[in-house]
Amino acid sequence: MTDNKTTVYRGKIIDLYLERVTLPNGAVAELEIIRHPGGAAVVALDNENRVCLLRQYRHAAGGWLWELPAGKLDAGESPLATAQRELEEEAGLRAGHWEPMGKIVSSPGVFTEIVHLFLARNLMHVPANTETHEIIEVHWIPFTEALAWAQANEITDAKTLVGLFRAGKIAGPS
Amino acid sequence: MTDNKTTVYRGKIIDLYLERVTLPNGAVAELEIIRHPGGAAVVALDNENRVCLLRQYRHAAGGWLWELPAGKLDAGESPLATAQRELEEEAGLRAGHWEPMGKIVSSPGVFTEIVHLFLARNLMHVPANTETHEIIEVHWIPFTEALAWAQANEITDAKTLVGLFRAGKIAGPS
Repeated sequence: MTDNKTTVYRGKIIDLYLERVTLPNGAVAELEIIRHPGGAAVVALDNENRVCLLRQYRHAAGGWLWELPAGKLDAGESPLATAQRELEEEAGLRAGHWEPMGKIVSSPGVFTEIVHLFLARNLMHVPANTETHEIIEVHWIPFTEALAWAQANEITDAKTLVGLFRAGKIAGPS
Repeated sequence: MTDNKTTVYRGKIIDLYLERVTLPNGAVAELEIIRHPGGAAVVALDNENRVCLLRQYRHAAGGWLWELPAGKLDAGESPLATAQRELEEEAGLRAGHWEPMGKIVSSPGVFTEIVHLFLARNLMHVPANTETHEIIEVHWIPFTEALAWAQANEITDAKTLVGLFRAGKIAGPS
């Protein structure tokens, strides 16, 4: 139960609050809570069982990461619509088949972000439309190799790891 | 390259900055960056191949989550030392065998948190020592069942999912 909420910052992507809450055991805690609108990420598999992975520059991570096509939910946008929009904008892809693969909570101690995961197949290429602050290379990696990278710590992005592992149980041998 | 950094907030767990950075393509972006010291999480397996999962109340996630024993790095503390301390404090366990399982980046668009993952075996029970703001129940779940929960979205916490999936490739059948 939230007893009191103080706004520290309201920004473009995140807001920061200090929230005084009463926990289920009756204890009162003052928590730093970062509120985020949530996002969606896509495991896109082609007919040769290759997965689309982006090589993306991330200042917060200090360099380049392998990531699924993904992005944050715009106001009023459903997770599936976000997934479809981001797959087209970032990777230049549309998909004929979409399958939900659940969600992840990125860091539940302080951060409200939830990322919804989807599996996309029956792909067709369309023009991409990245923004200038998005530094992205599109790669196609054999799915079994991507799973090996996920296991071996070559991939470290949380949504990408969970998306690949869950897709591995649905789409192919691990 | 960081050209300019404005402090918005310095807190107990996280700090928030506005950082003006020059990206590899020469574009300049102003980013909201939440800095976090990082953490460690533990997949602790007993001799009957059960995994220790905590049922934990998380205000930021709006309720109860299944999570690995985990916590943030204290100043100067190694990830392994954090993992060992948290396993003892939260779950009342020490382990004779430790194996690193890589790391995850929780949300690289805005958040610097990295969580280091470990597999722990040869467990012995010791007194736990949770804090009053930690609402935790300790459970022992057959590892194959925990993996099924990870696949079926019954588990949504990112570090817990990646820890279980990676451990599944090392420790047992998936």
